[in-house]
Amino acid sequence: MSNYDQLTSHYQTIHHFNHAESMLGWDAAANMPSGGSNARSKAMAELSVHIHRLSTQPQLEEWFGNAEKEPLSTEQKASLREMKRKWQQATVVPEDLVQAQSIASSKCEHAWRTQRQENDWVGFEKNWKEVVTLSREEAKIRGEALGLTPYDAMLDKFEPGTTTASLDTLFSDVKTWLPELIEKVLVKQQSDSIIMPSGTFSTASQKALGLEVMKLLKFDFDRGRLDQSVHPFCGGVPSDVRITTRYDEKNFVQALMGIVHETGHARYEQGLPSAFAGLPVGEARSMGVHESQSLFFEMQIGRCKPFISHLSRLSADAFNAHKDPVFAEENLYKIYTQVKKGFIRVDADELTYPAHVIVRYEIERDLINGVIEHTDVPAIWDEKMKASLGISTKDNYKNGCMQDIHWTGGSFGYFPSYTLGAMYAAQYKATMTQTVDIDAAIQSGDLSPIFQWLSDNIWSQASLHTTDELIKRATGETLNAVHFRKHLEGRYL
Amino acid sequence: MSNYDQLTSHYQTIHHFNHAESMLGWDAAANMPSGGSNARSKAMAELSVHIHRLSTQPQLEEWFGNAEKEPLSTEQKASLREMKRKWQQATVVPEDLVQAQSIASSKCEHAWRTQRQENDWVGFEKNWKEVVTLSREEAKIRGEALGLTPYDAMLDKFEPGTTTASLDTLFSDVKTWLPELIEKVLVKQQSDSIIMPSGTFSTASQKALGLEVMKLLKFDFDRGRLDQSVHPFCGGVPSDVRITTRYDEKNFVQALMGIVHETGHARYEQGLPSAFAGLPVGEARSMGVHESQSLFFEMQIGRCKPFISHLSRLSADAFNAHKDPVFAEENLYKIYTQVKKGFIRVDADELTYPAHVIVRYEIERDLINGVIEHTDVPAIWDEKMKASLGISTKDNYKNGCMQDIHWTGGSFGYFPSYTLGAMYAAQYKATMTQTVDIDAAIQSGDLSPIFQWLSDNIWSQASLHTTDELIKRATGETLNAVHFRKHLEGRYL
Repeated sequence: MSNYDQLTSHYQTIHHFNHAESMLGWDAAANMPSGGSNARSKAMAELSVHIHRLSTQPQLEEWFGNAEKEPLSTEQKASLREMKRKWQQATVVPEDLVQAQSIASSKCEHAWRTQRQENDWVGFEKNWKEVVTLSREEAKIRGEALGLTPYDAMLDKFEPGTTTASLDTLFSDVKTWLPELIEKVLVKQQSDSIIMPSGTFSTASQKALGLEVMKLLKFDFDRGRLDQSVHPFCGGVPSDVRITTRYDEKNFVQALMGIVHETGHARYEQGLPSAFAGLPVGEARSMGVHESQSLFFEMQIGRCKPFISHLSRLSADAFNAHKDPVFAEENLYKIYTQVKKGFIRVDADELTYPAHVIVRYEIERDLINGVIEHTDVPAIWDEKMKASLGISTKDNYKNGCMQDIHWTGGSFGYFPSYTLGAMYAAQYKATMTQTVDIDAAIQSGDLSPIFQWLSDNIWSQASLHTTDELIKRATGETLNAVHFRKHLEGRYL
Repeated sequence: MSNYDQLTSHYQTIHHFNHAESMLGWDAAANMPSGGSNARSKAMAELSVHIHRLSTQPQLEEWFGNAEKEPLSTEQKASLREMKRKWQQATVVPEDLVQAQSIASSKCEHAWRTQRQENDWVGFEKNWKEVVTLSREEAKIRGEALGLTPYDAMLDKFEPGTTTASLDTLFSDVKTWLPELIEKVLVKQQSDSIIMPSGTFSTASQKALGLEVMKLLKFDFDRGRLDQSVHPFCGGVPSDVRITTRYDEKNFVQALMGIVHETGHARYEQGLPSAFAGLPVGEARSMGVHESQSLFFEMQIGRCKPFISHLSRLSADAFNAHKDPVFAEENLYKIYTQVKKGFIRVDADELTYPAHVIVRYEIERDLINGVIEHTDVPAIWDEKMKASLGISTKDNYKNGCMQDIHWTGGSFGYFPSYTLGAMYAAQYKATMTQTVDIDAAIQSGDLSPIFQWLSDNIWSQASLHTTDELIKRATGETLNAVHFRKHLEGRYL
């Protein structure tokens, strides 16, 4: 057996344990009764220790060394590159640091759940200090190994190839036009009259509606399910994708679009090439590319008029409310494109969302690079929110820098993925329009030509190429934020 | 760290992987879409290889040798004994035989699913031959290692301590009185008029009813759930027990009592001592003792008149059918105690069930010990069914020796557990009656005194004692089939 084949078999073994971990995680969120959590945490910790051990096994170094000298096809070379990436990611950080981070994040995150509600920055800051210190240490070690700045090394975990230099360029461009665009749109929407849903929308009816919409979006129910959890997510494995949502019986709007979003993630997973199943090269390219699929579904398909027309019909059917003006196409469209300045990222609309991301990006970049200290964060947050959205978060930590879970667990470098995803999605749309009559496909109820494009250009490509190559092959150019701007102006102005 | 402590930690590690395996198995039966099965099989096979590797790790031999010389408490000695039992079970059979058995059983079981429907003995026989040959080889190896006959060595896997000698005595006694008792009861019931359920009983209402009954039986919903699967079972882990059932919308009777049965298994698991969580000594004593709990719930509680009175009230509520005579106490009691001779074990009533088990026991005993050949089985089955229940299965393989899954997978030695369980349950009842007013407790709707007895005597004892000791501590004597006979005569004559 060649060393390349040995590596292939080894990474497939790791994948089987990842499969177990993923399903146990889904189960913990979707099914598990409270009393099961202690035993489950221990089982999952054991799995994760075992996966780490397999990922850092000493003989891997020799196998990689030899495999690089073996005659390999282009695809095999890509597979080797991605296995090596996983291996480097796993081995570069010393085990005692990983351990210390795991303890510090658990402690910080656990306390944060109550501290946030109580707006307790002082309490939070004590735990968070340790998380930041250890993340900086991690970033330094990763940076030295990869020849990157500390923050770029953190970005590389989620968005391989993306750098501070490129994000600074992208985001400073957005900052030149976004605030003004938001203001214009707010003025334009001022006179809109919107009828908001009222009454009770049973979970059962909402779920039935969600399943109908998933059918329209060609979710493969032989290889996946829809369930409920407190925090919606897409989990499982490509041949068995588990998406979840959360229902509010007073309002169906958010859960419905949430299902469209998660279906985007799911179809990417379901569309990954089975030839590379269980191998790093067969996985989704990056968090940003993953988000580009969920946001293509949610923003490019989900919020366009012909799709809203389907939602209007299907939701009126589901709630047996054909005469209710809430469900009229025009009204639903207004609901789904309403722009509002607010404190909370996860509640933000398409237009103000990038502002929330840029605030976080600039802060975490400077925090990880040691330009600012963690105690500076609340004041800088307040200042940046005032500058970008004109709202102050002074003394309002719970709706300010304490609102997200990411930083409590040390996930620095993740936030940019959201806006990168939105930008990629707009760029795909611009290219797709040249060969696919998108609106006509949506109107007809057969969205296959759209999905065929995504499958050919993104899903089937998995991690065969770098992100830049992937985007260039799909759209003829690397990331270009002008498509995103045009999309927003087109929809909102 | 002492070698005893090292063993303890090692078996807890194994338990964490067993946790994963158990939950993935539950998920595969209760949730998984068809497309997920290939990846799931691979992930579960990987887990099981890993568990086997951990269970047979070379240093265990030295640890066991040293631990036996370390100063240990009585409980620690019991824990060591049970860990050693697991280790011996895992190491005694050579890996290539385990592998060959796994392949042969999968092949036989897979083909059996269609062959049974087609009554295809000839096709089945070809695959089954290999399963029998390998099981005999396994039995021989186990027997030599344990100083037992081949079949006793197979019994030991499921019922440690139970021997052919004791089963021959027990079952030959049953054969002296059971056929006559069945005949008498059939005559007595001849004139009974029973109103069978008709109409539609929605899955949702049946599930709601099942949950009510589980509440009455004090199932701990903080540490378990009820779901659906094609073959009902009890899975999960003690702090998170997953039971399943199958609903027939034309008849609620079987699913309802099935839930009572699985709740018995579940409460045993939920009642195991948390002090030994994750260790072999903290697990259920044996398959027979497990079945004694499900059958105590199903037969001793579930089919007694005061409990049927609860079922009458709760089911009339659930189906909103208070005037329907189907739900009258007397009628439900007749349904649940109706005796009928039939081909199929899983459809058999309480009274004829032991006859089905004894037929299988006598055949598998002689088959594994080499007294008969696998090609002899259909004829012997026919002969024994005629002798015990007066019905012939000549040329009717699908309702004869091809009806159960057990033998297709090489599970020889398991069948006796069902009747041992029924006998233990009757014996507990006889003892419990001396200190607990069982009928009064059930009538009151607070069954705690019954569960307290089971908890004190069985659940909390886990595997601290051998089965014989456990039964003797609980009831003052080892297994005595006279209690079972008295119970059947009391209920059915």
